[in-house]
Amino acid sequence: MALVVQKYGGSSLESPERIRRVAERIVETKKQGNDVVVVCSAMGDTTDELLEMAEQVNPVPPAREMDMLLTAGERISNALVAMAIESFGAKAQSFTGSQAGVLTTERHGNARIVDVTPGRVRQALDNGKICLVAGFQGVNRETKDVTTLGRGGSDATAVAIAAALEADVCEIYSDVDGVYTADPRIVKNAKKLDTISFEEMLEMAAVGAKVLMLRSVEYARAFNVPLRVRSSYSTDIGTLVSGSVEDIPMEEAVLTGVAQDRSEAKITVQGIPDNPGEAAKVFRAVADAEINIDMVLQNISRLESNKTDITFTCPRADGPRAVQLLTAMKDANGWSSVLYDDQIGKVSLVGAGMKSHPGVTADFCEALRDTGVNIELISTSEIRISVLIRDTDVDTAVAALHERFQLGGDEEATVYAGTGR
Amino acid sequence: MALVVQKYGGSSLESPERIRRVAERIVETKKQGNDVVVVCSAMGDTTDELLEMAEQVNPVPPAREMDMLLTAGERISNALVAMAIESFGAKAQSFTGSQAGVLTTERHGNARIVDVTPGRVRQALDNGKICLVAGFQGVNRETKDVTTLGRGGSDATAVAIAAALEADVCEIYSDVDGVYTADPRIVKNAKKLDTISFEEMLEMAAVGAKVLMLRSVEYARAFNVPLRVRSSYSTDIGTLVSGSVEDIPMEEAVLTGVAQDRSEAKITVQGIPDNPGEAAKVFRAVADAEINIDMVLQNISRLESNKTDITFTCPRADGPRAVQLLTAMKDANGWSSVLYDDQIGKVSLVGAGMKSHPGVTADFCEALRDTGVNIELISTSEIRISVLIRDTDVDTAVAALHERFQLGGDEEATVYAGTGR
Repeated sequence: MALVVQKYGGSSLESPERIRRVAERIVETKKQGNDVVVVCSAMGDTTDELLEMAEQVNPVPPAREMDMLLTAGERISNALVAMAIESFGAKAQSFTGSQAGVLTTERHGNARIVDVTPGRVRQALDNGKICLVAGFQGVNRETKDVTTLGRGGSDATAVAIAAALEADVCEIYSDVDGVYTADPRIVKNAKKLDTISFEEMLEMAAVGAKVLMLRSVEYARAFNVPLRVRSSYSTDIGTLVSGSVEDIPMEEAVLTGVAQDRSEAKITVQGIPDNPGEAAKVFRAVADAEINIDMVLQNISRLESNKTDITFTCPRADGPRAVQLLTAMKDANGWSSVLYDDQIGKVSLVGAGMKSHPGVTADFCEALRDTGVNIELISTSEIRISVLIRDTDVDTAVAALHERFQLGGDEEATVYAGTGR
Repeated sequence: MALVVQKYGGSSLESPERIRRVAERIVETKKQGNDVVVVCSAMGDTTDELLEMAEQVNPVPPAREMDMLLTAGERISNALVAMAIESFGAKAQSFTGSQAGVLTTERHGNARIVDVTPGRVRQALDNGKICLVAGFQGVNRETKDVTTLGRGGSDATAVAIAAALEADVCEIYSDVDGVYTADPRIVKNAKKLDTISFEEMLEMAAVGAKVLMLRSVEYARAFNVPLRVRSSYSTDIGTLVSGSVEDIPMEEAVLTGVAQDRSEAKITVQGIPDNPGEAAKVFRAVADAEINIDMVLQNISRLESNKTDITFTCPRADGPRAVQLLTAMKDANGWSSVLYDDQIGKVSLVGAGMKSHPGVTADFCEALRDTGVNIELISTSEIRISVLIRDTDVDTAVAALHERFQLGGDEEATVYAGTGR
């Protein structure tokens, strides 16, 4: 008998009818002899509706009350799923984040899980019950106030509960049936992966694959909780995320997939004196404004001027603010100009196979060149290559890379294809 | 500085705009130098919408999950009101029933408050905050599960919190601006009462006045918490419910008002052997089915047969079930028949003045006779007369009694009128 944690997203729970179908699946899992813990997001658009009402009563709502408000959404979906489960003849019990022992940091709206003490859930499981745990929420240690976990919070709840209960697998249900070699909306023959290592999934999530949030994968990797990405609309077994890239035998190492990200902007500070500490001034100013930096490029300094340029990318939403604060620092630091460009996109190739196939970077660049896409910036990790290009070129680049590395689902895709991993 | 508890009903909170108006009133009360605790019902139709979804996922939803579901409604309204208050520059903090220390019995869906330990609320008040407490909900002592308090639960929460905090007054806001001498929809010149004693209010609530639920008045009386019934749509000071009928000087004792109730049905068991214990069989059977009985009439037995009839009223919703179970008992007990009538209505006159004005019952019956209304059953208490009549006669009877006892708002209404009490 296994212990299975299942997490269902809002689109899987958008109507009473969908809730009944999810309940049927949960009861089926229980009948197969498993202990089952279920984490639910809020139904469909509930969270957006609550946010809109909050906006109407107070455009700058206090964070503590916002958490109290939003957590109602998961209470509703949880209770409804529990009721639906009982209508199929199984026993169910729902728990709020607090009741399930999800303890978090103090920060409202974006708390982090610090511990899970699932004593009550364990007891209910031992009594043969299916346990429902409200996702996205916890209780902070200091004031015992209700907190929310920010974006991807329900996935984080599921993984944390799975880790605390030492579950055999944590299944993440949404409207996609697994992790693909590329966005199927861009690449027609994108192929679903059967398995992917934690590191590869981390890289994919970090560079734009939306199927899993980075934090859940990090948490799952840290506690070695196998994740299975599945669709609640099909019986497809999905993609298993588990194991280390180190465990992949060299000759089986492959390329995992291509991902794109259009959410960033590029900022260039020109004419920075090439002295120690000058670059740090730029990044300290941006960091103090709580703006995350992704890719960074520092050109070699021009000999005649002993000055250099620094280019970095950050979320588009934060771009104008970053430009404003850097422009204000320009004269005092002797910089010549601050340039802004939000018409860019990032395309990345991820895969453990890179380590053992030295030609990948060359192939990557040639594939883009052959299709007329200009590379503005390159950044790499051991198992990833990312480039910054014009945002209008993103689809072309994704398709070209997917094709060049034969990641697609046809018979020829054997060299780098993700099957079997 | 006073401590004021305010309770707002669902219709006062049905939209973000209404919520902002309620918040303005709350902040105004705070600015006048009062400590303020607010209890909110769920917004508008939220509870009905949740009930409908529950019905769709499970026609017989488990009670524990139903409570988890329904309490989300008060969390939402509470958080939104807290946000709105902060937008007006005051500090607010919301509490779930559990956080506010509302401890209840175990019974889901209809729990009773057994204790309130409002330590956290008191502390927040001392820090200058306006406290919001989610109505209708608590946490049970045994399993720490969320419970709901059944009909009138938010009023009960408000009164219990007021009692625990020793508040100076508990204001109950709804869409009516006080307690009237009769339903203004039936009687045009019905008059709002300035004050009414707990006992009179209890009788009024018991016989159909919907402005306050019986249990809240009982609780307020037991803990001597003055209630003020007010409208959230006006600045009218409303009706103060306080004090004992014993405290009313004899010469000021008056009649309070007329109330009607169309929610009952009448059941008659005919031909019951007139022996000790026979009547008890009827009432035990009905009680065991958890059906509440209101009025009871046992005729004197007919000498020739030594048999008697018993007539009682119960909620219409339970009527068919009561008839079914009594009919099943008929033959074994030698009863001759079980009759059912749901075309009845109850009209009552309430007032401390009855004690000192011996002619009230005679006047009551004459008033109905003069307007052609037939009385089927009479029941009285020290300060109330109730009669059962055809439901089509209810409006006529209410108007006739209101007129006969001069309860209206014109200048002549001095003898029995409720002013000044």
